[in-house]
Amino acid sequence: MLMKTQENMGISNITITGSSAAFPQTGQWMHNRDIHALIFGSAWQEKMQEKKLDPDYYEKVLGFENRFWVHTPGMPILHTELTSADLMLEAAERAIEDSGIAKNEIDFIITVTITSPRYSTSMGPYIAGRLGINAPAIEMKTGCASNIFSIVLSSQIIAGGARNVLITCGETITKILKLNPRMAYAGGDAGAAVVISKSSDPAKGILASYINSNGSFSGHMGVPGLLPPNQFDLEHENYFMEYSDTAEDFLNQAWSEIPEILYKKAGIASQDIDCLIPHQVNKNRTAFAANAANISLEKTVNIIGKIANCGSAGVLLALDDARKNKACKKDKTIMLLSAGGGISWGGLIIKT
Amino acid sequence: MLMKTQENMGISNITITGSSAAFPQTGQWMHNRDIHALIFGSAWQEKMQEKKLDPDYYEKVLGFENRFWVHTPGMPILHTELTSADLMLEAAERAIEDSGIAKNEIDFIITVTITSPRYSTSMGPYIAGRLGINAPAIEMKTGCASNIFSIVLSSQIIAGGARNVLITCGETITKILKLNPRMAYAGGDAGAAVVISKSSDPAKGILASYINSNGSFSGHMGVPGLLPPNQFDLEHENYFMEYSDTAEDFLNQAWSEIPEILYKKAGIASQDIDCLIPHQVNKNRTAFAANAANISLEKTVNIIGKIANCGSAGVLLALDDARKNKACKKDKTIMLLSAGGGISWGGLIIKT
Repeated sequence: MLMKTQENMGISNITITGSSAAFPQTGQWMHNRDIHALIFGSAWQEKMQEKKLDPDYYEKVLGFENRFWVHTPGMPILHTELTSADLMLEAAERAIEDSGIAKNEIDFIITVTITSPRYSTSMGPYIAGRLGINAPAIEMKTGCASNIFSIVLSSQIIAGGARNVLITCGETITKILKLNPRMAYAGGDAGAAVVISKSSDPAKGILASYINSNGSFSGHMGVPGLLPPNQFDLEHENYFMEYSDTAEDFLNQAWSEIPEILYKKAGIASQDIDCLIPHQVNKNRTAFAANAANISLEKTVNIIGKIANCGSAGVLLALDDARKNKACKKDKTIMLLSAGGGISWGGLIIKT
Repeated sequence: MLMKTQENMGISNITITGSSAAFPQTGQWMHNRDIHALIFGSAWQEKMQEKKLDPDYYEKVLGFENRFWVHTPGMPILHTELTSADLMLEAAERAIEDSGIAKNEIDFIITVTITSPRYSTSMGPYIAGRLGINAPAIEMKTGCASNIFSIVLSSQIIAGGARNVLITCGETITKILKLNPRMAYAGGDAGAAVVISKSSDPAKGILASYINSNGSFSGHMGVPGLLPPNQFDLEHENYFMEYSDTAEDFLNQAWSEIPEILYKKAGIASQDIDCLIPHQVNKNRTAFAANAANISLEKTVNIIGKIANCGSAGVLLALDDARKNKACKKDKTIMLLSAGGGISWGGLIIKT
């Protein structure tokens, strides 16, 4: 269940009643070719050949094809652009609609983002206010595993008496990416939300969960500039995501250890899982997760070609895809996995 | 208990085992006179008289005397200054020491700040890493009531099986204050932490709690500049706290409604409370809270003269003061109250 030190059996009477993905019409869909043209100009084919860059590398090796952008990486941040709050709001409206639950039956709201549009202001009450929901609301983050943590916390909050918890996530990863071949292809923007609800059916619930954090690699993955904003860091382009390969070994280990812990806690085996939903990093990471969980690629959600890496929204986008396209909506046993910035990592098995 | 829609009886077997306040030696203590001199120069007495400002107003009317600053309001943000993470870290070390609990028995970490030193990076794992604790860790915020929310969430997490939850909070309010007479006197910096623990004594626990949020006034209280940082907002000084009196009526109502709800849920009356611990805004707000809770000022913690308004750290600083100076440490019934940005508000009654 919740704590790594704890070996109990999970939390019953909990299910997923709604999910959503939000890509508002005012953003734009970008194919790899559009990014080639942005970086190298209209003569990108010649330019990339000169630089010995394979234009098909991003699709062939990493699985990136399309992604949704509300901003062009490296350009100034504008007040007229969509923000992560806009994405959260649209995702929340859609997930609530999908759940069929009345707004006044939502008893807690968790907003999640690693790319908030504001400094001190919590997106929790802000989004609650925009939705017209009167309920306690927080903003939380712990890297790309944030939504695994938020579902685990929601299950605790429901065990404590809440009827329904709304988790809504918005990411504008493009606003912290530089427009260069290493970073620009990898990032996408999105909103995604999920409604976690109390169920009268004791067969439904979280069979096992595991979450953990280790800050030793904080410095190897993140935005180095200091807040509040200052001229020095702005001039030195310090408000962009930096990522060093030093964290990679640790991340591999984090991804690897989760499935075994979950199977043991839940007392089930890989063949009992109907659908594996990993955070969407790139196609290799999806394959790595499937292998670690001993689950076939057919049962594993891979939408990286559609969305690229949308930060903490990735696992909820994959969950929404699974619910809508993989017949994972009801009476299925699904495993969610994520690891990322922090480093925080975790997973859970839920019977829906 | 947790949800406003819920009328149950609280969570037993929970207590506070450690608390702390952190004001590292590299910051400085500022008296009102020091701020007079900063704003008006060494001839502040003449200057303030010219402008018909009473130098004693801040103490007489609002109760502000001293406060701890790591930064001079309005000056550039420097990499050499203490950050809210430094304050969290020192507070966490002290609270753990105060609790007598081994680091490896802490099963969850919640970091709280409305003035984070970093953008995407969660302070949760960052602080966990610096403490050498391997445990799931998040960063969360919902204005100045964040720590009421974090204690309520901790109680759920403990009910779910955790042994001890560390909540550590750091605020550098000075970095979002302008150096003017309206704002500069009101703000202070601090770290504060608390360890919430499972207890074998069923008489200890949270007798009642209430938390709520309303985003309708988000725009009237907060830092308006967009993130990630951009030149326009930096040039227009948009990364400073703004506060309009429009939110005041709503805040009064929020503060007022909490005690009655708590008394009713807990089934106790005001005379059963040994100590009232309100978020520290100014001395009028403390008196307002005491009046709303029908508790004497003698039983109400008021340390505003020592610390000014330290944002979400205020209620934990007051809690630490109560535990160390008011004989509130053991077998006492204490009420915590807070309302602030978001707007989020709430309170709880805990038998320690």
